[in-house]
Parts: sequence; structure tokens; C-alpha cells
Amino acid sequence: MSGHIMLTSHSRGSGAAAAHPIQWGAATPAQRGPIIASVSAPQHRNAIGTHSGSYAIYRALAVAAGNLDRGHRPDFTDTAPAEAIGPHPQWADARNIVSLDPYGHMVASAFAEQIAAGVDIRPTIAITKAHINMPELKAAIDAGRLRPDGQILMANGDVRVTKAAIDPVWYLPGVAERFGIKESLLRRNLFEQTGGMFPELITRSDLKVFLPPIGGMTLYFFGDITQLGKPETRVACRVHDECNGSDVFGSDICTCRPYLAHGIEVCIEMAQEGGVGLVVYNRKEGRALGEVTKFLVYNARKRQVGGDRAETYFARTECVAGVQDMRFQELMPDVFHWLGIRRIDRWASMSNMKHGALVEQGIEVVERVPIPDELIPADARVEMDAKVAAGYFATYTPAASDELALPKGRGLAE
Amino acid sequence: MSGHIMLTSHSRGSGAAAAHPIQWGAATPAQRGPIIASVSAPQHRNAIGTHSGSYAIYRALAVAAGNLDRGHRPDFTDTAPAEAIGPHPQWADARNIVSLDPYGHMVASAFAEQIAAGVDIRPTIAITKAHINMPELKAAIDAGRLRPDGQILMANGDVRVTKAAIDPVWYLPGVAERFGIKESLLRRNLFEQTGGMFPELITRSDLKVFLPPIGGMTLYFFGDITQLGKPETRVACRVHDECNGSDVFGSDICTCRPYLAHGIEVCIEMAQEGGVGLVVYNRKEGRALGEVTKFLVYNARKRQVGGDRAETYFARTECVAGVQDMRFQELMPDVFHWLGIRRIDRWASMSNMKHGALVEQGIEVVERVPIPDELIPADARVEMDAKVAAGYFATYTPAASDELALPKGRGLAE
Repeated sequence: MSGHIMLTSHSRGSGAAAAHPIQWGAATPAQRGPIIASVSAPQHRNAIGTHSGSYAIYRALAVAAGNLDRGHRPDFTDTAPAEAIGPHPQWADARNIVSLDPYGHMVASAFAEQIAAGVDIRPTIAITKAHINMPELKAAIDAGRLRPDGQILMANGDVRVTKAAIDPVWYLPGVAERFGIKESLLRRNLFEQTGGMFPELITRSDLKVFLPPIGGMTLYFFGDITQLGKPETRVACRVHDECNGSDVFGSDICTCRPYLAHGIEVCIEMAQEGGVGLVVYNRKEGRALGEVTKFLVYNARKRQVGGDRAETYFARTECVAGVQDMRFQELMPDVFHWLGIRRIDRWASMSNMKHGALVEQGIEVVERVPIPDELIPADARVEMDAKVAAGYFATYTPAASDELALPKGRGLAE
Repeated sequence: MSGHIMLTSHSRGSGAAAAHPIQWGAATPAQRGPIIASVSAPQHRNAIGTHSGSYAIYRALAVAAGNLDRGHRPDFTDTAPAEAIGPHPQWADARNIVSLDPYGHMVASAFAEQIAAGVDIRPTIAITKAHINMPELKAAIDAGRLRPDGQILMANGDVRVTKAAIDPVWYLPGVAERFGIKESLLRRNLFEQTGGMFPELITRSDLKVFLPPIGGMTLYFFGDITQLGKPETRVACRVHDECNGSDVFGSDICTCRPYLAHGIEVCIEMAQEGGVGLVVYNRKEGRALGEVTKFLVYNARKRQVGGDRAETYFARTECVAGVQDMRFQELMPDVFHWLGIRRIDRWASMSNMKHGALVEQGIEVVERVPIPDELIPADARVEMDAKVAAGYFATYTPAASDELALPKGRGLAE
């Protein structure tokens, strides 16, 4: 470790950004250039932030405790994607994809020469295969809704999937444009609202790429993913924003896990019909407000005078958090551009925000598939009524406006 | 927004750290003082970083996009903890708890005066109640392993729980001491390995408290949590480190969700016998290496010459990540000190690292409960054999050393 600590890095002209320029939206990895956000050789860096989001803090502990050599370079033997994705024509327009690196899964091959020459370039996307098994899918087989085929779905409920993990890589001018704001305003707020994270956001306007320390996304594919990008390929999809309390523990205050399981059913059916199913799992706990805020809001909803009811559902979040939602679906469509998807035939979501974001990005949604009524837990009626009243898509008759005042949620002590 | 941007904040003597001193490990909130990490009034801050970990980036988007007033103050009406926790004697020793704020759930009442005077103090812990329902628990009832009692466990599998979300709050001198390193080395690595996050780690040695942008933890309590802290109260516990692929989707390459479900069974039984069950869910995906690294390792394991086998299980992770594991169980016992727990009667974990960390912190583990053999998925045998060979606790005969060379894992194409 050298004795000198660089507190902020001002552009020095002959530095990495000049040696390894990034041309965002270029049609080939060679033209685009590698994104270098590793910290083992700071002089090569051409991006702000580093890899694996918030796990960089753990890497710091590992180095500080002497468990990890700070100069360690990954050995990429046998790690290449289990399935190829792209390139798709959408990659060649800087405005289509602004929050992930379309070449992030192929760096070990596309930049093999630079890596061999000592530049520490790391993947931001990894693609593998797995078998998954959710009790709900076995139940769907037993109920006759799903039919095992021995290839995609086994009789014991096992499902063959391809899956991809994607870390966020933000092209700051593109993110700013997506929100209709100036890049300088975006940079300033990223700096100030994080308590001063990364002064380079302010000092290094020449660095256009930022790897924010936020959770990424996981994709689960059902069926033959090499068919993606062909106009005739039918696609079913659920974009699911993380809700640990329901997704893992089955909390009954919302519809998250039931809708996820239903979305997977829809995806399996599509794959069995020769199309492709896709679940996008975004790490945006509690509408990207985090779980502490979420639990504060639960208490406020269940204790308020008049009980937990649809008409005050959004207001309770706003009182605590200042906003109803911070998920910002504006960036969500990027993953569809990455996969070459221009049309979603079956869309397992009722969210008008998600739907609007897709339409805005020119992605057609053919059929919207709401959650079946019988899958909505009793305590989740408050949320469902409130969302449908606020413009969520539903096939059933929405609750009458006077019904929104009725407490349908359980009290805190019940 | 003022025109001036402060890039690094050097101590100015008369600043917040002086106006709101923090005495870590004090026996009352008044003596300890509030931790002020909100950004609405920078002059009050006495900590590095800000609230809700990585979601600060989303808050920045919300402010930049004009959706959130940057001066918003939370309305804490009706948000107070649904159950009281503490104070416990353990809180009054600065060495017991170094990675969470023991007063984090009671700030709205303990610091009501300061909040009324305009200081933006926010909770780092929230406590609510819920009903959860996991298909595995209904199956355990049907199999006769669990018995509904109408209070804790209902006949339909619903379980009444208290739950708490905890954001990390690190007392840097204490964290450094826990790892046996100098505080200055810890600070320097936190700065360098994150790509230069928070220069204050270097420039503000007077600021001792850091809210790192990492995932926190969620606690699920079964039974009467007011009994915690009494020596006679029997406690069952599973400390579970997040594994999204198994916890949510039921991937069969590991034992995560099956062991979690089994741990919850053990917790329910303990609550039904008058004790308290506790699940600690830590956001440390892929051994805190993140999911991109995890999937790269899966590919390397399944493609290596000789197949996926126990003898190379840890080596494949080390090739890619440079370490086998970055979860650092050293900080894990803090939550037990927070809850006043000195003895765990039934401990649903086989990890020698978790067990060692508890013993190091003076917490007695009476009985270790391994995962029942029949819950281990076939593809997870590689992991289980490797861990047991490396010192994990097991009741069954570990695999013979020559068996560790046998490929028991599925190939990538299967």
C-alpha cells in the first residue's frame, strides 16, 4: 500500500479516460471500449464507483483483515456465459440502454487482449443455468394448471432455467436524459443525497460512467433464449420488485410472492408453447425506500384512526418517506433493449408505472395478465384496492369509492 | 439549493460533532446522544454516510427528478415499535455492539426534544407485526411435524410474527477492534476498496460513526419477545445469510431455503413451548460477494475438468473472488447483544464460522441443529460435503476423503 491517499481525482488529461475512452452506444465492444471500475490499478479506471454494488464494503473488510490480496485478479476460466445474449441492434443506440453495460457478460473474451496486458476488467453480468423448485409450482401441477413436459417442467415441480445476474452500470448523460434533467443536476443530487459519496461525481465531469452501490437485478429465463430478438418469438414476462417479507417469508400484507409465482406459471406456459418466459427480479426493497421505512409505514397504516384502508394507503407512505414510491421504472426497460425484445405478448403486471415506462421506450405490451383474484391474501386487499383506484390495471370491478374508506386490513395487535 | 458544493468536510471544532457528541456504549439514549446522518441539514450531521444504505441513490433520483422535497422531514405519527426491545445491560458496553445502533428504534421518543427543535434524527430500526405463510410450514402441519395452536400457528399455516428491520450503523473504533486491526487501516481500506466512497473516512477521524451503504438485516420473532433478556427464557435461532436464488426461487444447488424453512419450524416449536424463536436474515448475497460473482463461480464449478465436486468447491470461489467467503461473522453477534440474549438453546446452523463468532462474544450455544438429511437437494451434496469436510457441524458421517473427488453436482447443460 503506498503512503499517499488520493482524496479526489481530478482529470489529468493523460489519464485512463484518455487511454481507455468509452464510446457509449457503440455497436461493437472494441469501439465501445472496456469499462474499468476495478480498484487494483487506480490509474486505469475510467468510471466512478466500483463493482458488486454495496459488497465493495465487504471487500474492504476482507482486505483490511488481511484475507484478500488487494492486487487479486480474477481467474475467468470456465466462467463464460452459459448462453449467449446479443449483440442486438438495440445496443447500438446510446439512448436505449443507460443503466447496464450491454457488453458486461462478454468482457473476458471481448477484452481478452487488454486483460492479458494487465488491465483489470471485470464482468458486470454473469449468466448460468439452474433448476428451481417452488412449492407453488408443484401445487399448480397437482391442481392441473401446469403440465410437466420432462424438459422445461419436471413432474416433481423442478424447472430448468437460465439465469443472469446484472450489476448496474449507469451512463450518466443517458440517465439524466431519461429523467429529463440536466446531467449536472443529477450528479449533484447523487452526491448530496448520499451524504457525499463519490466527489468524482462533481469533480470528474469527464467520467461519464458510474457504477452505483445499489442492488442489481436477476433474470430467470424459461425456454430457448436463443429465440429472443426474433420478431416471431412470443414472450411472457413479469418484472418483479423485491419484497423480502413476502417473496421469502410469505407475509400476507401484499401480493408479491403470489404474483411472482403466478408470473412464473405464465412464463412456463409460454416456454412450453415454444416462446420464452422471463422474470426480472429487481433489488428495490419496499419501493426502493428500504425495509426500515416500509415497517414504519406498516405501523402507521395499521394504527391510524379509522384503520388500515385504501383511501389513505399512499398517504401513509408519503407522510413517512416524502414520496409514494422511489422505484423509478424509467430505467426498467433497459433490460428489454438488452435482450432484443420489442414486444411482450403476456405481461404479468398490473402496474401502470411499469406499463407506461415500457410504452415510453417503444416496447409493445399485447396482453396484461392481472393476478388471479383467489391469490390475493385477505390483508392485501387494502393495497390492491388502493392501486386499482390509482390507475392499476385490473379485469375485475374496482372497489367503489366509498369502499376505499372501509378498513380491510388487520390491526397491529391481531 | 445553495450554489456552493462542499466536497469534503473537515472538522471545524464548533460543528455538529461538538454540538451533538456521540458517546458510544452509553447506558441511556440521552448520554449516548442522537446519531444524525440525514442530509437535510448538513450542519447537524455527526456521522459519515446516510440512511437506508444503498437506497440513498434512489432518494437522489427522487430529489433530482423533482418528486421529493429535499427538505422533507418524516412524520413519525403511529410508527413507534410494535413491541419494546431493551434497554438491556449489554447496551452499556461499547465493545458489545459495534455494527448497529441499540437505540435506533426509539429515536422518535428518546430524541423527541431535539427533533421538535429541528434536528432531523431518523430511526435505523423499525419493529412491526405480521402474519407469514410459507408452503413448507403447511406441509409440516400436514406431515404431523408441526401442530397448529391457534395463537402462534394457525391451521392454514399462517404464523404470527413480530419483525424488525435494522440498518447498519458502524462504530468504526469498535469494528476495527473486533477485527484486531487499527482504525486507520479500516478507514483507509473502506475508502480505497470502494473506489473512493466518502473521503470523510480519511479526513474526519473525529467522526467515529459510519452508516455504510450495505444491506441490513431483518429479524423474525416467534413467541413473546418481552421474555428476551431473562435468563430462564429458552431461545431457538437461525441466522440466515441471504441467497435469493434458493430463498425465493428454490434453486437446488444449495440448502438455503430448506434450512431456513427448517429453522422456522424449530422457532415455532420453541415459541409453542413458551420460549422465543428468532430468525436473523442478513442481506449478504452470495457470501457477500454478490450475485454476479456467485454465478461466475457456478459456471466454473460445473464446467471444470472432473465435474462439480466437494474437493474443489472452495477453490473455485477463491479463483474468481480471491477469497472463499466475505460474510465476516465477527459482526453477526451484535444483534444477540442487542436482544439481551446470552444463551441460544437450539441453534439451527452448521456453520463453524457463525458458531465461533458467537462463542467469541460470550454467547453460549447449547444444542446445534443440523439440516435434516432428507431436506438436502441432490445438487447441493457438493456444497454439503465440502463444508462438512472443512469443519461444519454435522451429525451424520462426513463423506470419506476419496469421495470428495467424486462429481456429485449436475453439469451445466443438464
